[in-house]
Amino acid sequence: MDKMKKLVFGVDIGGTNTAFGLVDENGDIYAESVIPTKKYLSFDDYPAFVNDLCDGMKRLSESLSFEFQLLGIGIGAPNGNFHRGTIENPANLWKFSPAEPNPDESRRIFCLAEDIRKHFPGTLVLLTNDANAATIGEMVYGNAKGLDDFIMVTLGTGLGSGFVANGELVYGHDGFAGELGHVIVERHNGRKCGCGRSGCLETYVSATGIKRTAFELMARMTEPSELRDISFNDFDASMISAAAAKGDPVALECFRVTGEMLGRALADAVVITSPKAIFLFGGLAKAGKLLFEPTKWYMEENMLFVFKNKVEILPSGIEGKNAAILGSAALIWQKNRK
Amino acid sequence: MDKMKKLVFGVDIGGTNTAFGLVDENGDIYAESVIPTKKYLSFDDYPAFVNDLCDGMKRLSESLSFEFQLLGIGIGAPNGNFHRGTIENPANLWKFSPAEPNPDESRRIFCLAEDIRKHFPGTLVLLTNDANAATIGEMVYGNAKGLDDFIMVTLGTGLGSGFVANGELVYGHDGFAGELGHVIVERHNGRKCGCGRSGCLETYVSATGIKRTAFELMARMTEPSELRDISFNDFDASMISAAAAKGDPVALECFRVTGEMLGRALADAVVITSPKAIFLFGGLAKAGKLLFEPTKWYMEENMLFVFKNKVEILPSGIEGKNAAILGSAALIWQKNRK
Repeated sequence: MDKMKKLVFGVDIGGTNTAFGLVDENGDIYAESVIPTKKYLSFDDYPAFVNDLCDGMKRLSESLSFEFQLLGIGIGAPNGNFHRGTIENPANLWKFSPAEPNPDESRRIFCLAEDIRKHFPGTLVLLTNDANAATIGEMVYGNAKGLDDFIMVTLGTGLGSGFVANGELVYGHDGFAGELGHVIVERHNGRKCGCGRSGCLETYVSATGIKRTAFELMARMTEPSELRDISFNDFDASMISAAAAKGDPVALECFRVTGEMLGRALADAVVITSPKAIFLFGGLAKAGKLLFEPTKWYMEENMLFVFKNKVEILPSGIEGKNAAILGSAALIWQKNRK
Repeated sequence: MDKMKKLVFGVDIGGTNTAFGLVDENGDIYAESVIPTKKYLSFDDYPAFVNDLCDGMKRLSESLSFEFQLLGIGIGAPNGNFHRGTIENPANLWKFSPAEPNPDESRRIFCLAEDIRKHFPGTLVLLTNDANAATIGEMVYGNAKGLDDFIMVTLGTGLGSGFVANGELVYGHDGFAGELGHVIVERHNGRKCGCGRSGCLETYVSATGIKRTAFELMARMTEPSELRDISFNDFDASMISAAAAKGDPVALECFRVTGEMLGRALADAVVITSPKAIFLFGGLAKAGKLLFEPTKWYMEENMLFVFKNKVEILPSGIEGKNAAILGSAALIWQKNRK
């Protein structure tokens, strides 16, 4: 038993697909698979989703040619609550049908950790939101090894984050801490946010945010730009990186503005937790120095003097297609080390 | 030895006075005294300050009619660094004389914990900034007992803060975390701050901040106000509370504006650490509901939906003349419990 290989499941629930894999302590993935989350769109599809996910995990376990000990199942999901093991009112998962009269949002709290435990009795099941899972992945497998104080910023459709202080992820009293994307950075005519308010950081700094910036700049600037040939609905944030790489003035200004908004917000976050480093993860971060340089410049420009030139902005060390599975798996490995 | 009373020294270094007292685990103060910090104004006076403080502490120990075991010395000081036990470039302590050519600020790092330990060999000496000391005082003696996630806001001449997450104070990697007073809340024509930047929270929310607001409002409003009879130099924040209690329209508007600025900033802080409660401490907090009501209202108005109506704003439980000594003493008691 002692020499049996120890593995954990990492499960990443996304709006389109749910990916899961068997991961060892070094971050090697022994097997992985996927089920289409978007097939289970409505509130009533949730039990079938749990069944199919657990069946999938069991089949994946059986597919391995050796016996192993399953230490636990770690799950990253939008609106995941670590303390309760629940997914609470997710915007894009298991929604009420439009026909349902007076849908009660308090029913849209899904006890996923508990429901999965029923299929894997006695197994440790931990769940957190996707950005927190990525943060723990960075601690266990990535560039934050050995750091007790850092911030992780995940740049996708929105902006997620995880704060680590004194070597521990800050979950907060209700399990929802780390929502840097919803710090309000513009009080005057701020952009409408999906959260119902205006001026949130993620309306400026995210794949969606930089796209909105591109359209604002096409209106404000007069310079020609290849971006002017693309309609809003055909537009994708990656087109801005591609154009910027060719020196397109509107695209370059997009990155300067995005770096300014992010750099300012990071300077404000630094005064609260004083991190050693800030890691940028996800699609926009792949733009490299196009994003990192203005972000660093504006962060320093806005930094309180005691923190100046002390905080590094670095790329994530778990970037790549398996980052989300690794992050979720790391939840279990981190717990196991304590 | 086992039955000998255990006491710690709490030392609060302020710009005017340094107060110190012998405190037991319940927060009872057995003896206290003070030396005038302002007598030791210049850089060269620092060694004499250390000697006189330590002499004062020894005399106070000898004044007790019973023997006790000294568990440690806890110190709260402006710009105190917990990790290093230093006071670094304090604005109002041990300054270079104006005559000194090319003063080197890197010399103004005072190793106070180490220097005091020389006078009390083998004694645990811990130092942190005054707001962090008050935060730990709130955990050990005040209203935050048993809370793992909360924020303490200290309202004095400036605005200090302490963030507690997972039951531990967030010091950050360099020991300077928790500077909520230097989050930038106004990017357009923000008020000049002592830190060299503009628009910091403490330029609006503090004794100095509300005084600045009063003068701005006297310019903007036309209503009569008793505050209009007082010059800027004769003005004190407590006059605004007194006038507001009598229904003075300018004074009432001062508190509404102050609550708006603080409430917004707290809503942004909540998304980062998700505290169970926020404690307000210090002079301005004594204005009671004049400050608490608009602060709570604007915090909720600006709150991300997942945190709405979950976070309490409460008065500190260690308010009073000994709060600073208790906070510093709590540094040692908290360490001792672990």
